[in-house]
Amino acid sequence: MKYFRSLAQTPPKGWNSWDCYGASVTEEEVKQNAIYMKDNLNDAGYEYVVVDIQWYEPTANSSMYHAYADLEMDEFSRLIPAANRFPSAANGAGFKPLGDFIHSLGLKFGIHYMRGIPRQAVHNNTSILGSDHTARDIAKPNSICPWNTDMYGVDTSKPGAKDYYRSLIDLFGSWGVDFLKVDDIADSKLYGGHLDEITMLREAIDESRYDIVLSLSPGPASLEHGAFLQKNANMWRLTDDYWDNWHQLYDMFDRCQKWAPFVRKGNWPDCDMLPMGHIGIRSVDGGGSNRTSRFTLAEQRTMMTLWSLFKSPLFFGGEMTDMDSATLNLLKNKTLIEMHRNGENPEQVMRQNDIVIWKSKAKDKTWIAVFNLNDSDKKVQYSLNKLNETTYKKAKDIFNKEYLEAEDIHFAIQKHDVKLIELSN
Amino acid sequence: MKYFRSLAQTPPKGWNSWDCYGASVTEEEVKQNAIYMKDNLNDAGYEYVVVDIQWYEPTANSSMYHAYADLEMDEFSRLIPAANRFPSAANGAGFKPLGDFIHSLGLKFGIHYMRGIPRQAVHNNTSILGSDHTARDIAKPNSICPWNTDMYGVDTSKPGAKDYYRSLIDLFGSWGVDFLKVDDIADSKLYGGHLDEITMLREAIDESRYDIVLSLSPGPASLEHGAFLQKNANMWRLTDDYWDNWHQLYDMFDRCQKWAPFVRKGNWPDCDMLPMGHIGIRSVDGGGSNRTSRFTLAEQRTMMTLWSLFKSPLFFGGEMTDMDSATLNLLKNKTLIEMHRNGENPEQVMRQNDIVIWKSKAKDKTWIAVFNLNDSDKKVQYSLNKLNETTYKKAKDIFNKEYLEAEDIHFAIQKHDVKLIELSN
Amino acid sequence: MKYFRSLAQTPPKGWNSWDCYGASVTEEEVKQNAIYMKDNLNDAGYEYVVVDIQWYEPTANSSMYHAYADLEMDEFSRLIPAANRFPSAANGAGFKPLGDFIHSLGLKFGIHYMRGIPRQAVHNNTSILGSDHTARDIAKPNSICPWNTDMYGVDTSKPGAKDYYRSLIDLFGSWGVDFLKVDDIADSKLYGGHLDEITMLREAIDESRYDIVLSLSPGPASLEHGAFLQKNANMWRLTDDYWDNWHQLYDMFDRCQKWAPFVRKGNWPDCDMLPMGHIGIRSVDGGGSNRTSRFTLAEQRTMMTLWSLFKSPLFFGGEMTDMDSATLNLLKNKTLIEMHRNGENPEQVMRQNDIVIWKSKAKDKTWIAVFNLNDSDKKVQYSLNKLNETTYKKAKDIFNKEYLEAEDIHFAIQKHDVKLIELSN
Amino acid sequence: MKYFRSLAQTPPKGWNSWDCYGASVTEEEVKQNAIYMKDNLNDAGYEYVVVDIQWYEPTANSSMYHAYADLEMDEFSRLIPAANRFPSAANGAGFKPLGDFIHSLGLKFGIHYMRGIPRQAVHNNTSILGSDHTARDIAKPNSICPWNTDMYGVDTSKPGAKDYYRSLIDLFGSWGVDFLKVDDIADSKLYGGHLDEITMLREAIDESRYDIVLSLSPGPASLEHGAFLQKNANMWRLTDDYWDNWHQLYDMFDRCQKWAPFVRKGNWPDCDMLPMGHIGIRSVDGGGSNRTSRFTLAEQRTMMTLWSLFKSPLFFGGEMTDMDSATLNLLKNKTLIEMHRNGENPEQVMRQNDIVIWKSKAKDKTWIAVFNLNDSDKKVQYSLNKLNETTYKKAKDIFNKEYLEAEDIHFAIQKHDVKLIELSN
Repeated sequence: MKYFRSLAQTPPKGWNSWDCYGASVTEEEVKQNAIYMKDNLNDAGYEYVVVDIQWYEPTANSSMYHAYADLEMDEFSRLIPAANRFPSAANGAGFKPLGDFIHSLGLKFGIHYMRGIPRQAVHNNTSILGSDHTARDIAKPNSICPWNTDMYGVDTSKPGAKDYYRSLIDLFGSWGVDFLKVDDIADSKLYGGHLDEITMLREAIDESRYDIVLSLSPGPASLEHGAFLQKNANMWRLTDDYWDNWHQLYDMFDRCQKWAPFVRKGNWPDCDMLPMGHIGIRSVDGGGSNRTSRFTLAEQRTMMTLWSLFKSPLFFGGEMTDMDSATLNLLKNKTLIEMHRNGENPEQVMRQNDIVIWKSKAKDKTWIAVFNLNDSDKKVQYSLNKLNETTYKKAKDIFNKEYLEAEDIHFAIQKHDVKLIELSN
Repeated sequence: MKYFRSLAQTPPKGWNSWDCYGASVTEEEVKQNAIYMKDNLNDAGYEYVVVDIQWYEPTANSSMYHAYADLEMDEFSRLIPAANRFPSAANGAGFKPLGDFIHSLGLKFGIHYMRGIPRQAVHNNTSILGSDHTARDIAKPNSICPWNTDMYGVDTSKPGAKDYYRSLIDLFGSWGVDFLKVDDIADSKLYGGHLDEITMLREAIDESRYDIVLSLSPGPASLEHGAFLQKNANMWRLTDDYWDNWHQLYDMFDRCQKWAPFVRKGNWPDCDMLPMGHIGIRSVDGGGSNRTSRFTLAEQRTMMTLWSLFKSPLFFGGEMTDMDSATLNLLKNKTLIEMHRNGENPEQVMRQNDIVIWKSKAKDKTWIAVFNLNDSDKKVQYSLNKLNETTYKKAKDIFNKEYLEAEDIHFAIQKHDVKLIELSN
Repeated sequence: MKYFRSLAQTPPKGWNSWDCYGASVTEEEVKQNAIYMKDNLNDAGYEYVVVDIQWYEPTANSSMYHAYADLEMDEFSRLIPAANRFPSAANGAGFKPLGDFIHSLGLKFGIHYMRGIPRQAVHNNTSILGSDHTARDIAKPNSICPWNTDMYGVDTSKPGAKDYYRSLIDLFGSWGVDFLKVDDIADSKLYGGHLDEITMLREAIDESRYDIVLSLSPGPASLEHGAFLQKNANMWRLTDDYWDNWHQLYDMFDRCQKWAPFVRKGNWPDCDMLPMGHIGIRSVDGGGSNRTSRFTLAEQRTMMTLWSLFKSPLFFGGEMTDMDSATLNLLKNKTLIEMHRNGENPEQVMRQNDIVIWKSKAKDKTWIAVFNLNDSDKKVQYSLNKLNETTYKKAKDIFNKEYLEAEDIHFAIQKHDVKLIELSN
Repeated sequence: MKYFRSLAQTPPKGWNSWDCYGASVTEEEVKQNAIYMKDNLNDAGYEYVVVDIQWYEPTANSSMYHAYADLEMDEFSRLIPAANRFPSAANGAGFKPLGDFIHSLGLKFGIHYMRGIPRQAVHNNTSILGSDHTARDIAKPNSICPWNTDMYGVDTSKPGAKDYYRSLIDLFGSWGVDFLKVDDIADSKLYGGHLDEITMLREAIDESRYDIVLSLSPGPASLEHGAFLQKNANMWRLTDDYWDNWHQLYDMFDRCQKWAPFVRKGNWPDCDMLPMGHIGIRSVDGGGSNRTSRFTLAEQRTMMTLWSLFKSPLFFGGEMTDMDSATLNLLKNKTLIEMHRNGENPEQVMRQNDIVIWKSKAKDKTWIAVFNLNDSDKKVQYSLNKLNETTYKKAKDIFNKEYLEAEDIHFAIQKHDVKLIELSN
């Protein structure tokens, strides 16, 4: 077993099915995106292919859950892929064939799971692998998710509880799962964060023979739990689901400012997926429908710059096979990739009215991002010396590919856009 | 149909099975208490015999619920009495035979029900009487009770919801139910008060051909909902479950003080059952077990005086057939009964340190209750003139049966006891 | 001394200087309004003439306070009228001459005072009448008003504190004050309600030889304090300052609904002054300026009907000498006056979407007010039988002066307007 | 000007007058402590000598403030040392002579100041150096400290506000102040943190020609402000005033756990002074009086280990000239000093029941502190491998000066004590 933080020494990057397909993605769709990633984005460091929520729900057809739907489940109270949506999972194969396929491309495989044990297991009182206890014994009465009816929470003080979580990790490990996104757990809306179940998940993974990156949802996680989360997870969400609305992007700046002290190797506060490109194909949340991202190109630059500088995980949310070149270029921008990988101590250094300046440092350079969050174009004048302990000779405007005066920021920024400056000698 | 407030022009009085038997009372036990009430307390105005929670749970054996237990239910998603506990209910008779028996004694019959629709109805997706919709259609996803797993809440905006509540009232009415105590509704702990379901219950009763007093639990109800509750229910609880602990009785004074303005004919803020006599026979809540009430006689006087003056409903919680004469005498005390029935505008008029004075007025008399809530005996001196707009000639100490000076209170009160003074001319 | 509730057996009615003049009213302006009231409104029951805040501030010129301004004060730490604004107060006469004038018209005199003791008294450490203690001894360190710098609060546990409040009441009584509006006390925004100082004020008035109606500001008072306020004051505010904005009037319905149970003889939850007619002359609060009330005539009918039915105190806020006839007619409407005086148990009986129905009963009649709070005209159909225990033969539309069907409400109401129906036999 | 974080690259260490003398320390007492520090503790890195609150209050005689007392102030609304307590400050010399004396010992000089501008300046409307505006112009009406009456807050949006804060820093700088502890600012209890005034202080120091470490009080600072505080101050408090009560020490573990992610060079979350040795000489807070610290030796070890590992600033609170050798040895413990100076990423790695394990790493060693917070002695067994990414050969028990097995922790710890283990190769 590796020490859990060593599994994510840089922030994970990849693709997630939610923004396109809600709860309803199919095997074919997952595969076509994996192939696209292999061919176009793996060089840029994107490697995780993640199947989001309810792959065990045969009738799922959008992001709207069917309350109390009958789920695919094995004899040990564990949900398994719906074979009508994932044909290779038939006959008890589970996600092993899909995992193998993704690994064959040199990529990594991720899945989503809900905290707890299926309600249908509890009402039918089914078995737990490796325990004489049953689903009713370990379910925590009335520990529910407020937005989904699949599960009851698990009472970690009960005998059998740890066996259940161990049996889940063993199953996922046997499928080749490299990345596990657990939901209804970082913030539960009804009960706060479920720290007990997070701790038990951490132990179940640590004690297994599998290397699995642990991602916790949804947010907003509480700053009060920040140090706890650093001890137990590789990434956790700062917000509830994030969509392509300017007000949510605007709001993310404040959250990143507060969470920046928690960014360290192996611990990545998570700004959520990037709703870029072709999204909403069957996902109807966030006021959207089948569409190209409602973000302007300036807003996408702003988002990619903030996520990269802050070192958030980067999971593309669009259907990748429909990607346009502007989007692809942004995902592959060399400076963003370098800053995302090598930057240290990201920090908001100034916020006045709607001009926000962030800074990140690597060994021999410093990046300064000047954001205009206002709804009008703005002129900005600012002394770079105020922002730095050291001085630099060169200042390059990354998106415009031109060199600036190295001492003073003095330029115009259009509304919702960003100037990213790389300082070096 | 009578106007709902007219059904409870004075605060209801009776017996409830919870304090003795928790969720597990049997038909035999109900009957023996009904007979005792008929013989000993009906003259004093006690008339309701109430079967509390989970009469539909065959394995119930204390006040501790069995999580996810299988419940007795009819084909229309309605819970019915467990015939192993209520033999007369066998073969679909329901509570009709028991109701008939209670009515035959000249008494009134009450039952408890949980807000919502049984989870087993939802997971099995059973029918609703008078509707094409089914249990899954009207259940409100994730509207649960935090302390009991029997039900999901009902989404009152859904077609079929009103039919379900109507079908409940029709069933209860057909059984002869005169009094309905609905639980997990006045305060839900997770979600606040369920105002929508309260409103729908009110309408279902008003539109039925039955006269049913409506009682709402548990508390603490919110003062913010006080006027709403006056419009919709005959009584509602001020606290969570009340037991024979001094600190709970102490605390009730503050609650009564705040709720006194809401006392009016047909609307009775409810201090909960009287845990007197032989209680805890199978109920293990409140830190108790099979016992005689832990309240001292002084504390019982204090409780009975506060409840009576404040005009709370009076439901005896003990096994009545085991009643001792001191308890019986307190329940039948003529002044308490008169004050409970005829007093108006109950009001706390003074609180200093732990001496608390309440006042209630009838046509030609005024009652003054001086409580010593301190843990030591206290001397009290106070001018009665400060408490009254009018003056009286006679002042009678009710419990000591002696006359006092009519102008100044000037006596000792032992700890936790009360002086009840009746002023008249 | 009279029992305090007997001083306001019906809700007080009159005029207050704030809506016109903010903190800056002059003696001349007070007198001209008093004369107008005598001539035009006294017959309709209006009788109090109230000088609002900062009559002791020589430089006050609007509703914006001058922070840390020097105030007129006597040697005993009591604020006295600024003689440049109230010439008759010169040479230590105080408000006695103005009080005498108002009494000579057959009217009653009211003034405003801030909770506490002047900061300048504390920093200069001046005397307290009847005590060896000084201002610094009784000031409560850091008990301040968040919106005005005149005073520190008084620590009621300190010797000298009661002497100070007694000395205030004696001074006001000697001036002929009949009505005292104390501010920064019912809700303090920083500290909640100042119950200690309210209690001390109550005692100081009760123990004095003066009959003074006690009014507490600002709101929103807390429902948690409702019963306490009933014991200590004649009226208290439900809101922060109320102005001629529809959203504030809209919002008042919800507040009245919650406070209705607290309406009883001598206790009048207060909806605040009526910003009708010519207002904002020097008061610049509420987004306003010198203007005729921004309320439409329909909105004024709605406001007057709600205030009257709910039995709120009625204090006209406009400059009365500029009154137009529509406004005057509304203030003198005989049905509103009768309902305000004789109605009992005001209660909201229905609210659906934006149609709100209130009811009030007198001995032989019932009033039903149907409000359309929606921004569009609406048709309303409703069975009067649902609202009443009794039935009536006659139903009169008060504002349209026509008779309706006595069984069903069935009419259109324009947006923000009200139908007031009087039911009788 | 140096970059502010560079002024405190390791956590500051020194002495503060509050725990001994409250608000009343004298020049003689400050000097004797400075001399003791020079002779006994400077080698161990202790260097700051800090005069705490109200050195400008001539009558201060304990930790109880005299409400509204008259303060020593210069013509520019700035408080100056009370010459009766600091004789060298007479004739306008201010703290320059005392600063010089401390510097002559090779030590650094610190003072305390309250946020804002003196109330007596505002009520007397005195001048501001470098501005035409006066005290009344910049005071923020009703921005007060809830526990002290000296000041009003400053409205940073007002012209003159920056001039005032600049004039303060210039005065302090001219006195030789190296360390400024500003109070009523990190958490104000009434208003939350005063971020505006913190920002203005930061700017005033940055723009001055003085190097002054900035310390903010009192706590608890909010985690929500953690990143902001990192941008603006060198240290800030985690708690309200800390005293020698076990429950406060117990509680500090939880706070340190939450704040550990904020520890970085130049930013030191502050556990407050060390109430060790002879304290409470004239300070009567924390339930204490003139005494030797109520902490046992085990508790003092626990405190010193936590503070040092967590890298809190270390300010001794006792009268140093009365120091016993056990206390002195603890302050000079070489391992604690090294860990405090060189440890990185302090982190709580385990907490179960009352056994708490912390870890800190330097280049070639790791420290593990195992705390027993229980009220009984405990045996602890734990695998060191679970705590470390790397393995070590040697494990030394620092306080017992013996070597342990390097793989498993397996020992007894008495109640409230700590085992500190240094791992190396």
